Amino acid sequence: MPVTITDVAKKAQVSTATVSRYLNRSGYVGQEAARKIKQAIELLGYKQKISSFNPTPVKLIEVNFPNIDNPFYAELFEYLSGYLKEKGYDCVLHIDHFHIQDFDYYLKRFKKHEISGLITSSLLHISQKDLNRNLPIISFDRKISPKIPTIQSNNLDAGAQIAQSVLNRGKNKILIIAGAKEDYYPINDRIKGMMRVFNTYKMKVTLESLNANESIIAKKIMIQQILQKHEYDAICCTDDITALIAKQCSDFLKLDPLITGFDGTNLIQTLFPSLITVRQHTKELAQLMSDLLLKHINDPLYPLESVYTLPVTLINQYNH
Amino acid sequence: MPVTITDVAKKAQVSTATVSRYLNRSGYVGQEAARKIKQAIELLGYKQKISSFNPTPVKLIEVNFPNIDNPFYAELFEYLSGYLKEKGYDCVLHIDHFHIQDFDYYLKRFKKHEISGLITSSLLHISQKDLNRNLPIISFDRKISPKIPTIQSNNLDAGAQIAQSVLNRGKNKILIIAGAKEDYYPINDRIKGMMRVFNTYKMKVTLESLNANESIIAKKIMIQQILQKHEYDAICCTDDITALIAKQCSDFLKLDPLITGFDGTNLIQTLFPSLITVRQHTKELAQLMSDLLLKHINDPLYPLESVYTLPVTLINQYNH
Repeated sequence: MPVTITDVAKKAQVSTATVSRYLNRSGYVGQEAARKIKQAIELLGYKQKISSFNPTPVKLIEVNFPNIDNPFYAELFEYLSGYLKEKGYDCVLHIDHFHIQDFDYYLKRFKKHEISGLITSSLLHISQKDLNRNLPIISFDRKISPKIPTIQSNNLDAGAQIAQSVLNRGKNKILIIAGAKEDYYPINDRIKGMMRVFNTYKMKVTLESLNANESIIAKKIMIQQILQKHEYDAICCTDDITALIAKQCSDFLKLDPLITGFDGTNLIQTLFPSLITVRQHTKELAQLMSDLLLKHINDPLYPLESVYTLPVTLINQYNH
Repeated sequence: MPVTITDVAKKAQVSTATVSRYLNRSGYVGQEAARKIKQAIELLGYKQKISSFNPTPVKLIEVNFPNIDNPFYAELFEYLSGYLKEKGYDCVLHIDHFHIQDFDYYLKRFKKHEISGLITSSLLHISQKDLNRNLPIISFDRKISPKIPTIQSNNLDAGAQIAQSVLNRGKNKILIIAGAKEDYYPINDRIKGMMRVFNTYKMKVTLESLNANESIIAKKIMIQQILQKHEYDAICCTDDITALIAKQCSDFLKLDPLITGFDGTNLIQTLFPSLITVRQHTKELAQLMSDLLLKHINDPLYPLESVYTLPVTLINQYNH
């Protein structure tokens, strides 16, 4: 007599529904349960009947970003969407304007099989119970829980490289502008990296922070006011758009400080090839995130690290 | 005895399931059926029991754009997402890289109540049968069917304004660069508008087209080659990014033609305040699309026009 799904369920001490979910790779099976089911399948030599147990699984990944005003997020989503498409997955983007998302929204979507995976750059509050569900979730740039892999660029190192390149040019009246104070995690690391170098050389540094949800025009006015109050010979910005606004304001005020950015998207690299900035490798970041997520979806037991950190590239360090 | 849903169904000559869908505003009820049900409800004085017939309806709108490399789509989605959030709707973005979408993908999502409405800038192929379902769909910039409202800027008029402003400056060696030849509808209208004016004055005009899915770097190389072959005193581009690449290439080749763009997003306006361009009113476009879609979702009989055309604003016409 062939081994049935009921035998597997009995052996694994879980419900047949759980086994069915496991077999259909819906992604909604706890880690412990998945381990037991996998063991039971191997022990009993269970063979899945493809026809009866494999209804087309949903192949939709949801990506959650704070906004796409910044071309960095737009470029990252373009790459994610392209990679996932190659692997047979559709991909949709949700933006939350830096409001912390209620995890129930996603949990419901997982349960109703509306999405098969989540890539988020938002600080989700997930309960221990929900974490134990072992859902396929990948975080970009945010440390949500050690159980949810975080993919990031080496922001700390990038910040240090930027600072070193500013000091190499003999600058000493330094302003740091944080483009989005809500974007705590990555930006904080960038600033920490800069400060580590500036502090080593006992440089006096001024820090100003902009509100992420301000319009780009409001940001321009703020930066103009900052630059009118004091004179700086270097302005280190935590993203390229802020750097380009600072450049505009400086030109307008007939100032000529050294200005550095962060992100190095194709768009900004093409339109402003001379900007000193750090390139985050969006293509590689997107590929890694897609690969890890699909590995988890296809095998909930696949071992993932807590944090994956990719290197960055300093651009135009010898210019100016 | 109170009037029941069965009485309404009988009177309207439709199934109770259809009446239930109508009452729950799932959006999946034919126009004719909706009309009959509405009549039956009024005739019989049926009162909906809120508790039993109103499970939380899905409040998710899907937006489909060809890409978000161009900040125009990113800005439009930001506004759409903001407006829909205000009205209690979540909103996700799907990008298709100019591949024509199979309508079945959306039909399934409507049927499974995963989405309650669709805003698309893709050329969907919808069968007559599916059109008769009267689903809440709004098109941006594409004429899919007279049954699906199209919202657009006045591209024809905008093109004419751009051409007139080029002629006013005495230019006569004119190049038009279409930034995305796949983006047929709006771009074609822009070029038609320009040509109407140029032809009136019997101007010789060269037209070159770029491939939308090329990387921004590949586009730069192409434009460089075009500009090396002939000299032009005006370059009219069908979007701002193409205009800015053309500006870069001209600077590199030490040429100084008049360059015009199209779209006028906040991002580009802030970073390049001097660019001659046409501003599409993204905020108003997003508001109109959201309003019309929600009107249809809340009342499938709400009468909508086939086409809504918003005016544009010429920017920097007196500069240079």
